[in-house]
Amino acid sequence: MSRLTLIGTGPGDPELLTLKAVRLIAAAEVVAFPQKPGEASLAFEIAGGHVGPGAQLMPTDIPMNVDPEPARLAYRRLADTLVEKVQTGRDVVYLCEGDPLFYGSAIPLLEAVGGRVATSIVPGITSLTAASAEARLPLALRNAILKVLPAPLPDEVLEAELGRGAAALIKLGRHFDRVRALLARLGRAESAVVVEHATQARQRITPLADFAADERPYFSTLLVPARGAHS
Amino acid sequence: MSRLTLIGTGPGDPELLTLKAVRLIAAAEVVAFPQKPGEASLAFEIAGGHVGPGAQLMPTDIPMNVDPEPARLAYRRLADTLVEKVQTGRDVVYLCEGDPLFYGSAIPLLEAVGGRVATSIVPGITSLTAASAEARLPLALRNAILKVLPAPLPDEVLEAELGRGAAALIKLGRHFDRVRALLARLGRAESAVVVEHATQARQRITPLADFAADERPYFSTLLVPARGAHS
Repeated sequence: MSRLTLIGTGPGDPELLTLKAVRLIAAAEVVAFPQKPGEASLAFEIAGGHVGPGAQLMPTDIPMNVDPEPARLAYRRLADTLVEKVQTGRDVVYLCEGDPLFYGSAIPLLEAVGGRVATSIVPGITSLTAASAEARLPLALRNAILKVLPAPLPDEVLEAELGRGAAALIKLGRHFDRVRALLARLGRAESAVVVEHATQARQRITPLADFAADERPYFSTLLVPARGAHS
Repeated sequence: MSRLTLIGTGPGDPELLTLKAVRLIAAAEVVAFPQKPGEASLAFEIAGGHVGPGAQLMPTDIPMNVDPEPARLAYRRLADTLVEKVQTGRDVVYLCEGDPLFYGSAIPLLEAVGGRVATSIVPGITSLTAASAEARLPLALRNAILKVLPAPLPDEVLEAELGRGAAALIKLGRHFDRVRALLARLGRAESAVVVEHATQARQRITPLADFAADERPYFSTLLVPARGAHS
């Protein structure tokens, strides 16, 4: 039976695709992926080499505004199109950077598809574990808590959560300076490490303390080991 | 130059190995992995099919007691052996279930190796993202916080952390009944899902509400979506 499969392509290194992802991408008759007009698609750059010769490619522009409504509309339209293709007998895959359900672009698509067609998810290597591996920095061991904290959250929320445990701050962008100041105030800046473009050719790993004051990291994860870990 | 590579083999499905893991396992001259005497090794069951014909296999018994000292000693001995093999010119891999640095058995090994030989880490699919994918249950979206909470932590710590955000409870074992009661008290039990043996043949996915009162889940992750998510 035909189905829709949402596939995690991992953080950037094409070798971090799973065998399952490769098999399903190669067999798919329709391959959809997010792509902004005039820009490259990271998911397709990672996985495109495995697409079969007769497959239909469907780059899809998903608007990324603060207002979530245009994106919701785009996902709803994409869902309708993909559902129709599955219902007419084709195997469809949607490529997502990282893991489909870990802060992934597949979540609104999955919700928009609902139960209309058979749907599966293939997990992918997350930017979190990739950053940790590349920095050789263990995040959490034994009974330690690990928190994933989106940097756009207000200072008081981040401060309350940072406590003692290990944390990974994501979506840094224009929040980087504020988060950096907060970590310094909490005494958590010294062990923190910035990993940019994990596993990609332009990867850069920098202790937070050495990160230039006038720079902002891109596509990055800020790893904050547990207080007192590895001592 | 020879090196030691700690390789994540993923949660159980051999197809969730990455292309990089397969390539490095096939090329390795020494393949070490955790294995209890008289038991199967999950990491080797997942990845063993890719080991090259001339490779030396090194099953290693790592004691899993509440007292961490015997395990620390075993990792130190293993580290010395693997370092010696790399120093005499062999490529060595150590296979870990899941991801090496996400609550992984590679962390104490990495620490025991120190900087004695060149060491790399290949990230693996975590049981967390695998459970989420198999249950088709998104964990965290946009600016939601995601917490990984080991179940052995005391009730007051878990209660303070559970707040509103999404959580994955790990290491449930004999703590299952206590955690279940806590989630019920906090009004978080109804949306929670138990995923046992994610991606393995014996996988079972059960809403927490339907889990038999006299049973305990094994090798499982308890997914607790954010309050009000997907509504």
